[in-house]
Parts: sequence; structure tokens; C-alpha cells
Amino acid sequence: MGNKCKILDCTIRDGGLVNNWDFSVGFVRDLYYGLNEAGVEYMEIGYKNSPKLLNATEPNPWRYLDDNFLKEVIPEKKYTKLSALVDIGRVDPNDILPREQSILDMIRVACYIREVDKGLELVELFHDLGYETTLNIMALSSVPEKQLIEAFEMVKNSPVDVVYVVDSFGSLDPADIEHLMKKFKEMLPNKQLGIHAHNNMQLAFANTLTGWRNGATFLDSSVYGMGRAAGNCHTELLVSYIQKAKYDLKPVLGIIEKHMLDMRKKWEWGYIIPYMISGVLNEHPRVAMAYRKSEDRDKYVEFYDKVTTPEVAVAPAAK
Amino acid sequence: MGNKCKILDCTIRDGGLVNNWDFSVGFVRDLYYGLNEAGVEYMEIGYKNSPKLLNATEPNPWRYLDDNFLKEVIPEKKYTKLSALVDIGRVDPNDILPREQSILDMIRVACYIREVDKGLELVELFHDLGYETTLNIMALSSVPEKQLIEAFEMVKNSPVDVVYVVDSFGSLDPADIEHLMKKFKEMLPNKQLGIHAHNNMQLAFANTLTGWRNGATFLDSSVYGMGRAAGNCHTELLVSYIQKAKYDLKPVLGIIEKHMLDMRKKWEWGYIIPYMISGVLNEHPRVAMAYRKSEDRDKYVEFYDKVTTPEVAVAPAAK
Repeated sequence: MGNKCKILDCTIRDGGLVNNWDFSVGFVRDLYYGLNEAGVEYMEIGYKNSPKLLNATEPNPWRYLDDNFLKEVIPEKKYTKLSALVDIGRVDPNDILPREQSILDMIRVACYIREVDKGLELVELFHDLGYETTLNIMALSSVPEKQLIEAFEMVKNSPVDVVYVVDSFGSLDPADIEHLMKKFKEMLPNKQLGIHAHNNMQLAFANTLTGWRNGATFLDSSVYGMGRAAGNCHTELLVSYIQKAKYDLKPVLGIIEKHMLDMRKKWEWGYIIPYMISGVLNEHPRVAMAYRKSEDRDKYVEFYDKVTTPEVAVAPAAK
Repeated sequence: MGNKCKILDCTIRDGGLVNNWDFSVGFVRDLYYGLNEAGVEYMEIGYKNSPKLLNATEPNPWRYLDDNFLKEVIPEKKYTKLSALVDIGRVDPNDILPREQSILDMIRVACYIREVDKGLELVELFHDLGYETTLNIMALSSVPEKQLIEAFEMVKNSPVDVVYVVDSFGSLDPADIEHLMKKFKEMLPNKQLGIHAHNNMQLAFANTLTGWRNGATFLDSSVYGMGRAAGNCHTELLVSYIQKAKYDLKPVLGIIEKHMLDMRKKWEWGYIIPYMISGVLNEHPRVAMAYRKSEDRDKYVEFYDKVTTPEVAVAPAAK
């Protein structure tokens, strides 16, 4: 307890997976200055993926971040640093400016365990451009230990600053997190560690605290938990809980009051039974997300039967 | 992990604090038979307090339980046992039938630390009538250890079967629960232990799991978390999580689908910012509950200012 930590708010990036990044400039600006006042150390302002590589037909400024645009959104950079996430195969390294020309401070690379080598290539490139870097290893709940140990060998020798435990499916409990953190700490003594939790079983905050107690110094969260499916650890909980003179809850409450209540009425995230079920079953929430968009959205027993009966197709009928 | 445990569903009793026990007989019956199918060991079907002692002006069958009425509600008792809660000074011992004439199996006595002696008097009486008994020590987050140790001396020599750690304000975290459970276990080696958590900081499930891992065998919960203010640990999470052949999630999902979604639209409980704030501040949720009934219900910054500024009256203006 009490070790130094940094909160990284990913409301725009992970929350964008809920509403296809339908965030106004005014909201993103309010969020940045609010997080800054609250003392939150980092804000992840979106994805820095390539519209070309994703065959984009429409603009999506928080998915395809552009430095010139960002400088208009955040005319005055303050205490809170900015990060962007990239996916393997979706980022064009030519899109990335050297850090001294960019408003971004950190680039985070998301990857599955089988792509750690590719992830580390990107990390090295961004590191050489001057950015702080992280490697976010997703879906750790399904990774055999042997594979993890092989990945650690590569990570150890890379310049990456922070390595993240990512519970993509929201299926880990505090005992699992403790085990993983200990393993990461033991195998990667020269790296900072982070944790990114999902709230399918209402364990995101507890898991984040467990990560912190076991050595994680980068704690991901989002305001009012806004994030894909069951959402993330809530920023307001971390800011309240962590006894740190510089954190101030009020600006985060202000954002919730001004923006998040209306957004939650418009878009859905949080503890919802099909997401709970996908968490319990250690599965990607995509089937549950599709179900929530079908007419059968509240037929929980039927959903449970579908996802636990192997011979039945699980995709909900188009309606 | 894996020690034997029993789930005690308190949806009717604690949920009644949300809706003044406005539950239909049909719902209570569905809940009983659903919990039974799910393999849940106990259902707390209400309070066995005295309408006379509470100067009741209206009937309230789940607050003033009556055995004859209950036998109509549950015509066929099955696997799931029934419990009732009583409060010190609000129960008339003359209202309690001997167990062999009652549909109830267990009587639980709620008390604050200063009333443990009175609580144990009631426990002894109910024990002598043949009931299983519990002592639920409330508001433990505000109890100095010395007072706790004095209480343990009395509890040790009583016939009570189960002693509960009750986090009335939802302000404890897993590390606190671990500490308390270890203390209880050390001081009361001859008693079974229980845990009753509230969800103000989204820690009810994590705290309940921590209680279980540290020796609690009675785990309180309610379906969809229905309980006062932020509500309780969710029954569906416990039933999903605990690897026990006899638990079955589907009947609980059925209850949520058929009843709880509509009830949640009508009545409010769960993770709501003023309850989060009262949890963080280790305070009774009554001020937050009153605020939620005022026109200012969603003015979180104002609420936070009021409850953290000692010189300002906190009761919301009547409107």
C-alpha cells in the first residue's frame, strides 16, 4: 500500500468503443482540464491508428488522432500528460511525429501474447522517437504460463517503460491479479507495471487496488467507468480512495454531473447481466454486445443457454 | 479458498429498506422457489419486528413477519431455509413461536457494538426456542478495536451460532475485511463467521470473497444487489463464482429478468455517486438517501461540498 502510482484515464479511448468515439470537442476539453484539476497524471485521448489501414470511410478524430487537431482541442497543455493507444497492424509508423513535435507524451501498444514481438518492434520505434511507451498484453486470463514466460524474455530486453496486465474479459479476480502481478514483478524487475481492468464481475476497482498493492504503478480507469461492455475501473473511485494530497475528487464529480449521466442514458456500459456472464465464462464480450443490440437483449436465461450450449450458434438473429 | 460456505439471500429484508417492503406475494414466492432451485441455502424473508413497538399505522407483512401469513406465501418449504432479522428494542420476544411451530429456521439479531449485551440476550432466547442464531454487528468500520475485544468476551460465552462482520456504510476495502476476519477468527474460534457487505465503492463482491477466503462461511447477498442505498453483494455473482456443483445460476437470472429489471426502474439502489461519497467518508447513507429524494439529487459537487464542510447543515431543503 501507499506506493507511488499514476492514474491513466482512458475514458475517451476505451469509452469510444461504446459510442464509436462520438465525443464532442467540448467534452474532451472539459475532461482534460477536469482530470488536470483532479491531479490525474495521464489521459488517453484516443487511438493513433491509421484510417488507411482500417479502410476508414468516415472521419473519427479520436480513433485516428491527429496532432494538429489535438492542439486545437487542448490549446494549453497542463500537468496531465496525454497518451494514445495503437494496435498491431493498424498503426502506420509514418504517422507518428517525433515527440518534441507532438502533443502526445506516451504511446501505448496493445497486443495479444502471440504478437509480443511485433508489439515490441513498435515500442522500440516510438521509444526512439522520444515517447514514453507501454506494452499492454491483452486477454491475460487465457494465456498459459509458459507462453507468458517466453514473452517476458523478449520484454526484458526491450526499452519499454511500463508493462500492463490487461484483463480484457473482466474474468479475473483479486487472487488472479495478485498471482499475475507477482509473476510480472519477478520476471520483469526492470520494468514498471500497470493494470487495466474490466468490470464484468464488479471487480475492476478491487482488482486495480490489488494490482497497486502488488506493485503496479500505472492504474487505468475511466470516468464513471465508461468503457467497452462492462466498462473499466472508475476514475472517481481511484481518486477518492488513493490518499494522495494532490488528487481532488470534485472536478471528477463535476464531469460526471455535467456529462456522464446524459451519456449513460444515451449509451450503454457497466454491470449488465450478459457482460457478467461473458466475464464469468472468460469470453470476449462481443457476443454479449451483439445480444444487447438485439430485441432479446434482456432475455438473460436464453442468452446463458446459448453461450453455454456448445452446439447452438450464439450470434443473435438479425432483426 | 474452497471452504464450505452458505449463501444467505437478503433481497426481501435489505431490499425492503429501498421500497418500504412493497413486495408482492407473487414476487416473494418466485424468489423463494428460484433461490431454492439455484441451491441458495438461506433466504431472509424480512424483519420479525413488532408493529406495536414501532407504532405501525399500516400493515407491512415483510417488516412484521407473521408465521400464518408466511405459510400461505410458502406453501411448500424446500431446501432453502428461512431467516428473519430483528433489531434491538424493536422485537417483542412474545411474538416468537418455538421453532417447531414456525416456518423460520434462523433468527438474526442486528446490533451496534454498544448493544452486544442486549443482542446476546435476544440470541439466547431465540436459541432456547430452537432457532439457529446469528449476531450481526453493524457499522464495524467505526468501532475501535478495544471495544471489539470487550464484545468478543461476551460473544464467546453465548450460544450464538454465527457472528457477522457487517460493513453497514460500504466503506471497508478487502484489506480491512481481511484484518477484521482474522481478528474475529482469532478471538472467536468456536463461532462460525459471516459477512454482510454494501456496494458503495463497488467492493461488496470483492469484500465478500475476501471474507470467504478468510474464514467466513455465511455470505450475505441480494439478487441484482437490491438493498439499502448502494445495495449488497449480488447473489448472481456469488452463485456464478463459487464452484459448487449444487449452485445453478439460471433460476437467479430468471428472477432478474422477470422481476428485478422492472423493480430497478421503479426503485433506486446500487452504485450512485452520493452513496459512493458516503462510503468513502465512512458515513451512514441516510444523508445521501435524503439528498437523492430532493430536487438536487444529481448535484454531486454540491452534495460533496455539503458533507465535507462541517459548518454547513447537510439535510437537503424540503422542496
